[in-house]
Amino acid sequence: MAFYLNQVPFEEARENFESELLNVNFFHPREEEIETVLAVGRITCKPVLAKRSNPHFNASAVDGFAVRAKDTFFARETSPILLKVGENCLRVDTGDLIPEGFDAVIMVEDVLYPEPGVISVIKPVTPGTNIRFIGEDFNEEEVLLPAFAKVKPADVGALLAGGVKTLKVLKKLKALFIPTGDEIVPFSETPEPGQIPDTNSSFIKAVLAEYGYETFIHPIVRDDPELLYKTVKDNIEKYDVIIINAGSSAGRDDYAAKVIERLGRVLVHGLATKPGKPTILGIAGNKPVIGLPGFPLSAYLVCEIILKPLAEKYYKNEFHDYGKIKATLTKTLISTTGVDDFVWGKVTRVAGRYCFTPLSRGASVSSTLLKANALLRIPRFSEGYKEGSEVEIALKEPLAEVEQYLTVTGSHDLLLDLIDSFLREKYGIKLSSSHVGSLNGIVAVEKNYAKLAGVHLLDPETGEYNKSYVEKRLKGYVLINLSLREQGLIVARGNPKKISGLADLVKPGVTFVNRQKGSGTRVFLDYLLKKENLNAREISGYDREEYTHLAVAAKVKNGLADCGLGIYAAAKIFDLDFIPLGEERYDLLLREETLEDTQVKKLLEVINSQEFKKEVENLGGYKTTYTGQIVEKG
Amino acid sequence: MAFYLNQVPFEEARENFESELLNVNFFHPREEEIETVLAVGRITCKPVLAKRSNPHFNASAVDGFAVRAKDTFFARETSPILLKVGENCLRVDTGDLIPEGFDAVIMVEDVLYPEPGVISVIKPVTPGTNIRFIGEDFNEEEVLLPAFAKVKPADVGALLAGGVKTLKVLKKLKALFIPTGDEIVPFSETPEPGQIPDTNSSFIKAVLAEYGYETFIHPIVRDDPELLYKTVKDNIEKYDVIIINAGSSAGRDDYAAKVIERLGRVLVHGLATKPGKPTILGIAGNKPVIGLPGFPLSAYLVCEIILKPLAEKYYKNEFHDYGKIKATLTKTLISTTGVDDFVWGKVTRVAGRYCFTPLSRGASVSSTLLKANALLRIPRFSEGYKEGSEVEIALKEPLAEVEQYLTVTGSHDLLLDLIDSFLREKYGIKLSSSHVGSLNGIVAVEKNYAKLAGVHLLDPETGEYNKSYVEKRLKGYVLINLSLREQGLIVARGNPKKISGLADLVKPGVTFVNRQKGSGTRVFLDYLLKKENLNAREISGYDREEYTHLAVAAKVKNGLADCGLGIYAAAKIFDLDFIPLGEERYDLLLREETLEDTQVKKLLEVINSQEFKKEVENLGGYKTTYTGQIVEKG
Repeated sequence: MAFYLNQVPFEEARENFESELLNVNFFHPREEEIETVLAVGRITCKPVLAKRSNPHFNASAVDGFAVRAKDTFFARETSPILLKVGENCLRVDTGDLIPEGFDAVIMVEDVLYPEPGVISVIKPVTPGTNIRFIGEDFNEEEVLLPAFAKVKPADVGALLAGGVKTLKVLKKLKALFIPTGDEIVPFSETPEPGQIPDTNSSFIKAVLAEYGYETFIHPIVRDDPELLYKTVKDNIEKYDVIIINAGSSAGRDDYAAKVIERLGRVLVHGLATKPGKPTILGIAGNKPVIGLPGFPLSAYLVCEIILKPLAEKYYKNEFHDYGKIKATLTKTLISTTGVDDFVWGKVTRVAGRYCFTPLSRGASVSSTLLKANALLRIPRFSEGYKEGSEVEIALKEPLAEVEQYLTVTGSHDLLLDLIDSFLREKYGIKLSSSHVGSLNGIVAVEKNYAKLAGVHLLDPETGEYNKSYVEKRLKGYVLINLSLREQGLIVARGNPKKISGLADLVKPGVTFVNRQKGSGTRVFLDYLLKKENLNAREISGYDREEYTHLAVAAKVKNGLADCGLGIYAAAKIFDLDFIPLGEERYDLLLREETLEDTQVKKLLEVINSQEFKKEVENLGGYKTTYTGQIVEKG
Repeated sequence: MAFYLNQVPFEEARENFESELLNVNFFHPREEEIETVLAVGRITCKPVLAKRSNPHFNASAVDGFAVRAKDTFFARETSPILLKVGENCLRVDTGDLIPEGFDAVIMVEDVLYPEPGVISVIKPVTPGTNIRFIGEDFNEEEVLLPAFAKVKPADVGALLAGGVKTLKVLKKLKALFIPTGDEIVPFSETPEPGQIPDTNSSFIKAVLAEYGYETFIHPIVRDDPELLYKTVKDNIEKYDVIIINAGSSAGRDDYAAKVIERLGRVLVHGLATKPGKPTILGIAGNKPVIGLPGFPLSAYLVCEIILKPLAEKYYKNEFHDYGKIKATLTKTLISTTGVDDFVWGKVTRVAGRYCFTPLSRGASVSSTLLKANALLRIPRFSEGYKEGSEVEIALKEPLAEVEQYLTVTGSHDLLLDLIDSFLREKYGIKLSSSHVGSLNGIVAVEKNYAKLAGVHLLDPETGEYNKSYVEKRLKGYVLINLSLREQGLIVARGNPKKISGLADLVKPGVTFVNRQKGSGTRVFLDYLLKKENLNAREISGYDREEYTHLAVAAKVKNGLADCGLGIYAAAKIFDLDFIPLGEERYDLLLREETLEDTQVKKLLEVINSQEFKKEVENLGGYKTTYTGQIVEKG
């Protein structure tokens, strides 16, 4: 506990690290010779010179007849000149050597064939016509590729044509990744409670491969400082970079910093970033040794802000992202001053502008990386950004792909995943869905943060669905039914607690898992409780909120609750029992003008198709009576 | 000769081809199961569901002490609560299982240690604090990746955390590339005159790999229709696509179309594109069979406009270029109407706008692909574009890389390659140089098509260099000397024709190779000829023009001319003899305001460095007396 983290702004940390690495020649080009056909993506370390001119002989540029130009000087359409094949002219194909004594080629299309073995020339040609001379493409000793150029697929042909069969390229940076921790088990094993599968090794290896590192994964090292010391010491000669993961914070088993100190020097211990704080940058045995945080978002960020720039400097080539764009922030972000705050999110195009929706910022949340396509940096002097403000974000995928997303938010339903599959397969449209509940979905459509929102809100006064909620916020809207679906209590298989209805929820010993406020399911529950005169406060677990039907079912499946309210399909997936409580209408809300949107038109085609409806019915718990129909307008 | 090409607009050809391929199920997903760690870049063919929740147990989110929240409810700074470690609290690290009976974690930083084995808690915590609950990241059965999604490096961690060790992905498209032709030899051999090394196989394989094809290269097939027929027939079952190269035009040895007809159907024979015309699209054995043109630019274009879209349709994913931008065309392009004309070129940024310089359009010119970073399409109804007009071009590299080019044009000098190496290694700046001669270089700087131009123009009136030429076109210019360099006659080793000076050029039996009009070397030659009263018309080869010193030297080396005028360094590279005729001043021309340009400042740093000058002197034939100095201003 004696070791406290100091926090250094990441640019300062990186500069410090890089200038020390300069001293130990880390950025000095190290070369190897490889076959040209294997060189795509590699970086040259010297100018690549042609060993042979191209073409390497005078060749015909067309299919035709090699002639002596002077024989044709007086050829006219009115007075053609006849040439005997094999004597005054020779048949040549594209690429053929120009035979000795001939100096031009006439295309097959440009001559007539008055009799076998004779051609008739009707216009003159000058010497050199249709001949590709030696070196016309390039000459030997010419620079084909400069030093520090990345070899493109299209370069391969020219290099081979120039007789360049092997190439001197920069050696790949070799990294050793050392996973550490008593709780870590190989990902191929099934982890016990308390054990964590080693997913970082493969994940970080894949990330580093994009930056040009070749990463070797060391077997997991137990929490033993001597063992870690020995591991680093024994390998430091063989690699360009050593990465220790994790053990870089100030916890009980965090030996990394001490081990680096013993073998060399710790330059930085603690970055002023969020995530990424527990990072160590050190040098030992003249090699960089990095203590990488254990959480996936932290580890990834440190790769982006430290390991990527290192590789760029070594390769003298930047690994470009897809540029930066301005986008509207759909959610207020509060940031601690003093740290650079990095927020992953999803950017999509809605109503003529880009919208950036931040994803979960918990460093441990790996699903954020599955969904993210952009990164926002909140600088350390900033307290954050308000919802609706314009922010600059770094794209992590091409803008053209960003354009392919169709944004849907609001309530969660499994049919959205099905629509996504249909849209991707048939039209290359990608559904980008987030689950914020029906009420927030209405707000998102009103603010033009999403094109569509899934809503299923029962009005307890009227017994009607959605209409009254939407009308409070939006004019010019359309509600299109996606399905009728069965809501009910999801209980363990065999219903061990003998739950038969809502009244059983208030019984002692029965635990419940709830949905979040603003969700249609929560509204439905509260409506039913009121109708049955039950007191929510008496339900054990009423305050435990989950954001999706699947999350509720998973809690029941794992024995963390006895029951929850949700749709039949979720219970079916987990093979749980289901006590139906009622059918509800799940609609898609959109602005009327959005009906003209190309992507939305395709989505409507999908949900109106028999193929889709059939798959929906097969899921169980859904009815497609009104699917695809406009059920409200206003 | 009976087979004539019809010409079909490429979109029509592609649509026709694709709709026929739809009928033979070419686009139908074919799946295979692979390890998740090998799946980066592959395309899912089903939604990927989590097999395990993450976390899979309730875990501590911090390094700290697991407590019972209720024990801390009355903790205050003024009245701390003491907890005994091992009894009322337990030490846990990030990721550790929350021990039975505990329901919150207090961070190590938030407690005091009044005595060994006891912690002092100074503020209350609520149940659940600092605990990551099962499924907080995602729940089992949740969709981690949708169908038809490309697996990113950052996905690997989450997939493995979700227990997804293998993945169902789309099988790669398997292509067979069949090189054909009696004149073709493996690229590993040294080709004789008339023989052509097989560079296309490896080149196209590399290009197709970018689109997701796995390409197998067949041994070269001789020009024998039966053999080609048998080759295609025997392999058609084993591959998704068969590519025959070349033999797709209407020449003597062009059997491809006939072979495809015998095995199936030719749908298209001849595209209305330039390059790319001699293309065949056919179907045989329910598989696409493509006759690919032999010239590299043609073959590459057909890959781009036919094979890439096929793959995109199969993978349901587009292989995005880097977007389109508007650029100023630096050269007039004339196009035949009736064909879509595709022109590769180099786009760079000069004076606040992008400039697109077309590269050689000869389909056989593979060096075009080495230099190109953008593609312009001149539509079939257009007659072309005028110099200076704004055109839309498709980027073939990220815009951020385009920004790294420093454009230099004008006269060719070998020192430019040396500057390029220095700039790339030290500053990541890339010199983009083209060789248009000194006079055109001045025009390019005047029109802001290039930041710099190399010039070495002798004024025969004054005996001065460059100044008078530049002043005719440009005000506010600066000339910075790059070097003094020796010009002279380049002759074969041993000088077999006993050439001792210009007077020998008019001797019978002596052949000469000239530089192009507008080049400084040509001006110098004409000046010397006039001075010596020699008649250019009497020089055999005076009309044969080459664009670079190396090209001149290569011609002499290959015995295609007895001598040429050029710099000493070019003679030295080819180990030729050199008869000095005089020293000239080679300057870099720029606008005065360009001195403020960041890239140009770095270039000036380079040429002023001792390191650079030393390497220049080592080349021979150069003097660095004035290198880096401003020699003229006006």
